[in-house]
Amino acid sequence: MPLFDIAPIVRVVGLMLSGLAGVMLIPAGVDFALTNPDWIAFAIAAAVTLVVGGSLVLATRHGGAFELSLRQAFVMTVACWLAVTAFAALPFLGLGLDYTDAFFEAISGITTTGSTVLTGLDASPPGILLWRSLLQWVGGLGIIVMAIVILPFLRVGGMQLFQTESSERSEKVVPSAFDLSAWIAAIYLALTACCALLYRLGEMSAFDAVNHAMATLSTGGYSTHDASFAHFTEPLTHWTATLFMLAGALPFVVYIRFVKRERDAFWRDPQVRSLARFLFLVTCALAAWLWWTRDIDLLDALRLAAFNITSVVTTTGFANDDYSAWGALAVGAFFVLTFVGGCSGSTSGAVKIYRYQVLWIVVRSQLLRLVSPRRVVILRYGGRPMPPDVPASVLAFLAVFFATVAAFTLALAAMGLDLVTALSASATAITNVGPGLGPIVGPAGNFASLPDPAKWILSAAMLLGRLEIFSVLILLDPQFWRS
Amino acid sequence: MPLFDIAPIVRVVGLMLSGLAGVMLIPAGVDFALTNPDWIAFAIAAAVTLVVGGSLVLATRHGGAFELSLRQAFVMTVACWLAVTAFAALPFLGLGLDYTDAFFEAISGITTTGSTVLTGLDASPPGILLWRSLLQWVGGLGIIVMAIVILPFLRVGGMQLFQTESSERSEKVVPSAFDLSAWIAAIYLALTACCALLYRLGEMSAFDAVNHAMATLSTGGYSTHDASFAHFTEPLTHWTATLFMLAGALPFVVYIRFVKRERDAFWRDPQVRSLARFLFLVTCALAAWLWWTRDIDLLDALRLAAFNITSVVTTTGFANDDYSAWGALAVGAFFVLTFVGGCSGSTSGAVKIYRYQVLWIVVRSQLLRLVSPRRVVILRYGGRPMPPDVPASVLAFLAVFFATVAAFTLALAAMGLDLVTALSASATAITNVGPGLGPIVGPAGNFASLPDPAKWILSAAMLLGRLEIFSVLILLDPQFWRS
Repeated sequence: MPLFDIAPIVRVVGLMLSGLAGVMLIPAGVDFALTNPDWIAFAIAAAVTLVVGGSLVLATRHGGAFELSLRQAFVMTVACWLAVTAFAALPFLGLGLDYTDAFFEAISGITTTGSTVLTGLDASPPGILLWRSLLQWVGGLGIIVMAIVILPFLRVGGMQLFQTESSERSEKVVPSAFDLSAWIAAIYLALTACCALLYRLGEMSAFDAVNHAMATLSTGGYSTHDASFAHFTEPLTHWTATLFMLAGALPFVVYIRFVKRERDAFWRDPQVRSLARFLFLVTCALAAWLWWTRDIDLLDALRLAAFNITSVVTTTGFANDDYSAWGALAVGAFFVLTFVGGCSGSTSGAVKIYRYQVLWIVVRSQLLRLVSPRRVVILRYGGRPMPPDVPASVLAFLAVFFATVAAFTLALAAMGLDLVTALSASATAITNVGPGLGPIVGPAGNFASLPDPAKWILSAAMLLGRLEIFSVLILLDPQFWRS
Repeated sequence: MPLFDIAPIVRVVGLMLSGLAGVMLIPAGVDFALTNPDWIAFAIAAAVTLVVGGSLVLATRHGGAFELSLRQAFVMTVACWLAVTAFAALPFLGLGLDYTDAFFEAISGITTTGSTVLTGLDASPPGILLWRSLLQWVGGLGIIVMAIVILPFLRVGGMQLFQTESSERSEKVVPSAFDLSAWIAAIYLALTACCALLYRLGEMSAFDAVNHAMATLSTGGYSTHDASFAHFTEPLTHWTATLFMLAGALPFVVYIRFVKRERDAFWRDPQVRSLARFLFLVTCALAAWLWWTRDIDLLDALRLAAFNITSVVTTTGFANDDYSAWGALAVGAFFVLTFVGGCSGSTSGAVKIYRYQVLWIVVRSQLLRLVSPRRVVILRYGGRPMPPDVPASVLAFLAVFFATVAAFTLALAAMGLDLVTALSASATAITNVGPGLGPIVGPAGNFASLPDPAKWILSAAMLLGRLEIFSVLILLDPQFWRS
């Protein structure tokens, strides 16, 4: 007897692939309209994907009620991301990449990481550029829905903080998972449209504006230019990007609350407040440092600091300057910032701000207890008592997170990469940021020259990071497969 | 009204300094006997230290009962380590170092770190070499006593695991703190004597044997030769060092149990079992890697791997080869191993093996709960239920530990050090290991060329690491100073 029914999983994978085939028609149409021969690659990829996806749906059409067990939910999550990536890589094949590079580029897009193996972007046909942006945009939407609808239910890494929140009646924002997803999609689309419009009002072409808006809101970081945002010189463009990268890193439930006339929703949310305060402080500090040590005009220093810090902290990975040339302190700071991340329930990756808040709360309470051992300290998050298992969950998450970074660093070092490249590539992949440090994987580098096994290792790291590690790790636990 | 009575603190500091003055007479005597003029430097330093220490004791001779509050215990701990280091630096002044270098060398000794600013050790007079070894030996004894007698009582970073242990009647090893300290000192001395004897039976001179035995048992790592253990070529010497570095990293309460006829004390202790298993596995893996990639004879590969891994994991810092030349994987592995550490209640620093055990237990239980959310999981350590606040304590410790490493990395980067040097120097100081990575702070380098502010930063890092960070951090908390 099988452990569980795989039919619903296969069905969802099939539906996802069918949807993916539909998305492939967009770059196909654009290339066709512009009489670019690449449209054939997209059309073939769409056909293959649709045939496979459709067959899976048809094969499981007699499935009964759609109720998933926890076990099924975990397997489905990983299966969907893997299957979608495997087929999303197909169009790149038609454009001359081998499957390793194609898969790397696809998973870097879908996980909204933004590390790339492509060069010569400025001269690339529109279809492939659009496909990269679309992958990030869809991946970003996917992760928000997953973070808000699925993960709290799976209680991964302290996410139960937000389960408690949305299951309390008084706090219930919208009733069902389906409604919630629709709301999120609408808000995400509206924000992307606003961002594209503002980009267009600046110096960007309509095509650049749409592509960059998708890569901004998804905190992905793919650009249509090799120089990334250094290609654009207007300060307004940089500030727009800074604002909307931040917008992509805010919890999307808060947008829903705001739309539902809770006017102080943003200010009342503990994650938003902490993230804003943190970005403000770090930006001011780095701007002052740039102004002082590198003799940059204060406004320019603020713009450079705000853009690049927001880019790394929100795990976007755009760059408007090669910050690895800003001196040892800046390089060290950007490495540390790689681990911060935005808010839970957003498109951003890494550790995320609420886990640092939990850390801070636990550290404070431990210090208090060292002074007054008999004192009873109640841990509160956002004014409410924290569920008692949150510290252990966060501890487990952080332990596994940093152990994963260490393990992937060693795996990359075994491929012969130097320590800075290995460590920063491992970190930037697991946190879904994009650029690492050093000449190969740094903001001015390119992942193409890495050996093939290293690309597969990094692909695995991006997926692990995107799925909060535990969702994947649990499938490797023998206990999971016991009935 | 003062917050607390400082008289008992001043008195203990005075007693410590008087003892230190006594220890200074040993190198003074040796140099005098060998008609080396350095004896004057030691004699003057001893006189100054004794006058200051004696005055403090006399000034507080009318103190009442010796009962310390928690607050006093924290202040006393930090005050003692700082005062002893400040005066232990004096003899180095008489030998031509400036106070920055003298303080760095003294604190690196007392915290059993082993980073050095001295070169030309092979040609140095015996007094100063002996003084460095004595500092490590005394510092090692000090930290074991502190870890076993004081820290569990202060409940720092999950140490309450061991408080529970020693406060249970059935588990009570020896009755009082004084008896406990005497037992520890006796065992520590006996182990050092055995180690020195074995070294002497090998190729070492009596002087080298005594010095290296003190630096081995204290997991300190100061050598009397610039080449460290690469100076010695006999395999037996290297294996002796490996064995006794491990001996210094085992919990000293287990030795007491063993002496009290619990013949299976070592094997029953969960820390000892984990550490032994971990060292065995990592040594085999690295030996195989060396044998495979560098064409080294298998026995030599085992000896090199066992020596250098044990040296880094026990936070000793001896080297018998420049392992930074073993390729990227080895360099990455040694960087990761820096954070492991030996057992609690030993001379070794870093995170320590029991915290990783707690992590593992928590991660396992979280994975179990992801599969079966309704299951009640009881966390057990060494067969007994874990006190409920241990996961939060360990979480707080790890958060503060790695935040400290990051903060010191940035501070060193701000001094202009490159990222690898800054990160590895910060890590090696906080973990009290000794050597970092790169040409300056690596196993073949020397800390002398670092700028003065960097030496003070590293001195602070060594002390923080040695005192489990929280014991120092709490003094910076305004809450601590409120009545």
